[in-house]
Amino acid sequence: MAIVLGPNQYGKAEVRVVAVDRSTPRHTLVDLNVSSALRGDFAGAFTDGDNSHILATDSQKNTVFAFARDGISTPEEFGLRLARHFAGSYDWITGARIGIESFGWDRIAVGGQPHDHAFRRAGGEVRTAVVTADGDDLHVVAGLSDLVVLKTTGSEFWGFPRDAYTTLPETRERILATAVTARWRYTRTDLDFAAVYDSVRTTMLETFASLHSLALQQSQYAMATAVLERHPDVAEVRMSMPNKHHFLQDLSAFGLDNPDVVYHADDRPYGLIEGTVLRDDVPAAEVAWEGTPGFV
Amino acid sequence: MAIVLGPNQYGKAEVRVVAVDRSTPRHTLVDLNVSSALRGDFAGAFTDGDNSHILATDSQKNTVFAFARDGISTPEEFGLRLARHFAGSYDWITGARIGIESFGWDRIAVGGQPHDHAFRRAGGEVRTAVVTADGDDLHVVAGLSDLVVLKTTGSEFWGFPRDAYTTLPETRERILATAVTARWRYTRTDLDFAAVYDSVRTTMLETFASLHSLALQQSQYAMATAVLERHPDVAEVRMSMPNKHHFLQDLSAFGLDNPDVVYHADDRPYGLIEGTVLRDDVPAAEVAWEGTPGFV
Amino acid sequence: MAIVLGPNQYGKAEVRVVAVDRSTPRHTLVDLNVSSALRGDFAGAFTDGDNSHILATDSQKNTVFAFARDGISTPEEFGLRLARHFAGSYDWITGARIGIESFGWDRIAVGGQPHDHAFRRAGGEVRTAVVTADGDDLHVVAGLSDLVVLKTTGSEFWGFPRDAYTTLPETRERILATAVTARWRYTRTDLDFAAVYDSVRTTMLETFASLHSLALQQSQYAMATAVLERHPDVAEVRMSMPNKHHFLQDLSAFGLDNPDVVYHADDRPYGLIEGTVLRDDVPAAEVAWEGTPGFV
Amino acid sequence: MAIVLGPNQYGKAEVRVVAVDRSTPRHTLVDLNVSSALRGDFAGAFTDGDNSHILATDSQKNTVFAFARDGISTPEEFGLRLARHFAGSYDWITGARIGIESFGWDRIAVGGQPHDHAFRRAGGEVRTAVVTADGDDLHVVAGLSDLVVLKTTGSEFWGFPRDAYTTLPETRERILATAVTARWRYTRTDLDFAAVYDSVRTTMLETFASLHSLALQQSQYAMATAVLERHPDVAEVRMSMPNKHHFLQDLSAFGLDNPDVVYHADDRPYGLIEGTVLRDDVPAAEVAWEGTPGFV
Repeated sequence: MAIVLGPNQYGKAEVRVVAVDRSTPRHTLVDLNVSSALRGDFAGAFTDGDNSHILATDSQKNTVFAFARDGISTPEEFGLRLARHFAGSYDWITGARIGIESFGWDRIAVGGQPHDHAFRRAGGEVRTAVVTADGDDLHVVAGLSDLVVLKTTGSEFWGFPRDAYTTLPETRERILATAVTARWRYTRTDLDFAAVYDSVRTTMLETFASLHSLALQQSQYAMATAVLERHPDVAEVRMSMPNKHHFLQDLSAFGLDNPDVVYHADDRPYGLIEGTVLRDDVPAAEVAWEGTPGFV
Repeated sequence: MAIVLGPNQYGKAEVRVVAVDRSTPRHTLVDLNVSSALRGDFAGAFTDGDNSHILATDSQKNTVFAFARDGISTPEEFGLRLARHFAGSYDWITGARIGIESFGWDRIAVGGQPHDHAFRRAGGEVRTAVVTADGDDLHVVAGLSDLVVLKTTGSEFWGFPRDAYTTLPETRERILATAVTARWRYTRTDLDFAAVYDSVRTTMLETFASLHSLALQQSQYAMATAVLERHPDVAEVRMSMPNKHHFLQDLSAFGLDNPDVVYHADDRPYGLIEGTVLRDDVPAAEVAWEGTPGFV
Repeated sequence: MAIVLGPNQYGKAEVRVVAVDRSTPRHTLVDLNVSSALRGDFAGAFTDGDNSHILATDSQKNTVFAFARDGISTPEEFGLRLARHFAGSYDWITGARIGIESFGWDRIAVGGQPHDHAFRRAGGEVRTAVVTADGDDLHVVAGLSDLVVLKTTGSEFWGFPRDAYTTLPETRERILATAVTARWRYTRTDLDFAAVYDSVRTTMLETFASLHSLALQQSQYAMATAVLERHPDVAEVRMSMPNKHHFLQDLSAFGLDNPDVVYHADDRPYGLIEGTVLRDDVPAAEVAWEGTPGFV
Repeated sequence: MAIVLGPNQYGKAEVRVVAVDRSTPRHTLVDLNVSSALRGDFAGAFTDGDNSHILATDSQKNTVFAFARDGISTPEEFGLRLARHFAGSYDWITGARIGIESFGWDRIAVGGQPHDHAFRRAGGEVRTAVVTADGDDLHVVAGLSDLVVLKTTGSEFWGFPRDAYTTLPETRERILATAVTARWRYTRTDLDFAAVYDSVRTTMLETFASLHSLALQQSQYAMATAVLERHPDVAEVRMSMPNKHHFLQDLSAFGLDNPDVVYHADDRPYGLIEGTVLRDDVPAAEVAWEGTPGFV
């Protein structure tokens, strides 16, 4: 028996790089949070403190800033550039994972016209991208986090088994609310990533809104399926969706009815539904998902 | 000399009430976080554990839910109803403070049409309202928190004194970014609160965008002044604005110039500018501001 | 009528300075989060972007680091040095507020012996200090935040009035839990601040533990009163304490009793008790409290 | 080609259960945050909204509270009871994952004596346990999160390669600080879990303190190796450790030297070191790690 080093990676997390395109008076900006992680033969650092294979995390940070000088384009393309660079930088580095959060900015309207250089941070979801270089392979997983949605009707929950610990009544009418976190894997690296992202996001929102839901699982599966049906370059979708409970408040003690009007939005506990929907004819790529938390 | 009880208040904080208007197929919803605090003669509870004057915080919570049954209207009007109720409920209760956060929801568009009962949580700022009942007086302070804005140009900083600890170079070109927290006090309780809120918010955004800024103080003062000029029912504006620093990254070590393109968004420390702008002919009302954190 | 600038202040928030004393092999460290705010005549910056009176917040940050070179001693003494310096730096600066959070570190035990230079961050409460220079006056407010305490018995709540919205049953047995945030004002600036801090903290803990509580208000008042009785240099105490509700879970549907055994710790809403206890023969000093959030 | 449902799970997250043992006047309490997730055949819910296989998350929550009535013992044992129960409850349920966070409470000392029923929440790290039932197999992964440690000396970093983006100077003297998140897998389910936890935690702290570190990787590996050497029932250790940078502040502009005295604690970006250390003769058990975020 021996004690041995197993899988490992290291890198620089959360480099907050903002790039401004000032080539015309109508500026644009890209606002990212970039994390890099390298994989390869770093055993000497672990076992002996020998750093001869350790490309410093400070150097990784510098690389992010330097690469931004040429423009960032989409998070996916920026991630591809960085992943290729790191994976090809030294022969003991066999892979790299670039994780990116992208924060949106909308133009401020002045007199009804979008301003050239003044912006308001878009609230709502964060766009994400994970690019993994694994030897010569490149994988792109796009995504979004915390897209909070709610339906005031069109949601039921009934027909579930009743064990000794079941007290929940069935309902034909409830508020359904969730914060969508989704990741989807592309089969190509040369897409119009911005356009596909917008289309996937719209598909998810429209499907959530339109489906009469009998279970949050059903809503999730329908959203993922619709994405796959409309986007041939998406191989699989993984989603994590809390059931953000809104409980109808009992007002009878005050002589009041409550015909689906007043709810209490509860923090904890919450249901949590996690699922994968995929094409059965596309090869799996588990390495593309390594290090992405919160998915089955 | 004696040790005595001084100012005190108590209440229920963060009641998360959601009210749905289902009177037509086109639903609307109001999503609030309500905190109540009562003022008056509660000395017995402090000195002897005598609760005969203590309207339980659980009862305060129930009141919030019960009052929501009749519809919430605006946060300001809901706060006025609650403040009047609590301040008038027992003769030993002389005042009440109702603090409200309001979370916006936008309709999800399906096929380009806003959906009747499916919503997406609006990101960005939180709308706030504080209503204070003080005897027979009622005060309304509206506000917003964390409206994050940024200009990619049109901001300078120079002409400041240089003491022994000053190393900052002057600049004629920088990114200006902040998260606006603002509170403004109304002189009336019968306004169209929703319309005025929208107008104040727009005024702040347009002024931030349009002003060529020599100091974040100047931007803040201009925003507050514009609000007062356009809204005769606003008596004073208090603002708190962090200077969210974006530092131009030095790329010279990598043989690259950086003509105002690549920035590092820094977390801490940050500048913090807090100021008040007011009409000099309106009586002060300090009680309206008690318990509102983060303002001078 | 005119629109005028009212009270304002500006400064650098959250400078994270760590100072190590290596004068002997047994190192010590001080870990602070320092925020400075200056008061005085800064009107030109607000009205015209004239920065000639604006000591840059970057310079304030530099000052914090430079002053740490001589050692920090206690947060209170470091705050006094900084407040005196800023308030005396230019004739248009009439006051300064230095707010400090202090994070504790305990020595790691190795073989039962405290290590010379390895530390573990102490969890639990954060120690705070606010020093305010107001002209020639200096005020010191010490404090602590988020000292979480709980009693499994020795707490009752009954005798409260029952209005139309009261449903809460009376109880002679409940869990009492809170997160103590306290601030206390000293009447002197030459105290052994570390020793008094420890004594105040111990007094609060012992009083919370020992008092059979009929109301959280009673516990708060007893804690503050005990601090004043034992510490002649403390003029007043202000406290803010959430009632962190632990609800007895009803298990009867599963054929189980629950004799004060199983509780649900709830997040929101929560009761919130805020109060002041003071000596009636000490002059008030409201300026010492300006900018300290969360207190009546 | 078909679009199919892949791996999925669902459950109730973050049930905050507190259990008090009042069998003697010297009370004890256990304070947990419990999340359950079930695995099995739930396809009908996803594809058709058929809930006949869906044990409601509300029922899962009830089960947690009901099981706590008999006492919780350790988080690991409570997780084992729950995992066995859920995995055996219906024949379509093939597995369960119980994730637990455990919050510590220390007795308040009164007059130097630990109090019988008054407690102070222990700060610092959170103890964790993940129990996975997979058919008839049971896996236990213990752990801790956010144990923040720091060395004021005894840390170097040099000998790393210098690529085109490397500017970091080598150093023979730096502050080393990190927040240890560790998980370790047991090979048995009948351990004295409390005793082993304490021993593992002590081993990690002592190793961090004692090792003269040439790389954070080296510290991590030494800590994991020491755990394995001293605990024969631990099969593998996975760790995630940010490098919480403390940068020596340059004070030369102010005429001051800085002989390793004044540091700036930086928030972002940070290095991140993740690694696994394991016995090479123990069968792998990837299912034990599914759903545990933040590890390679």
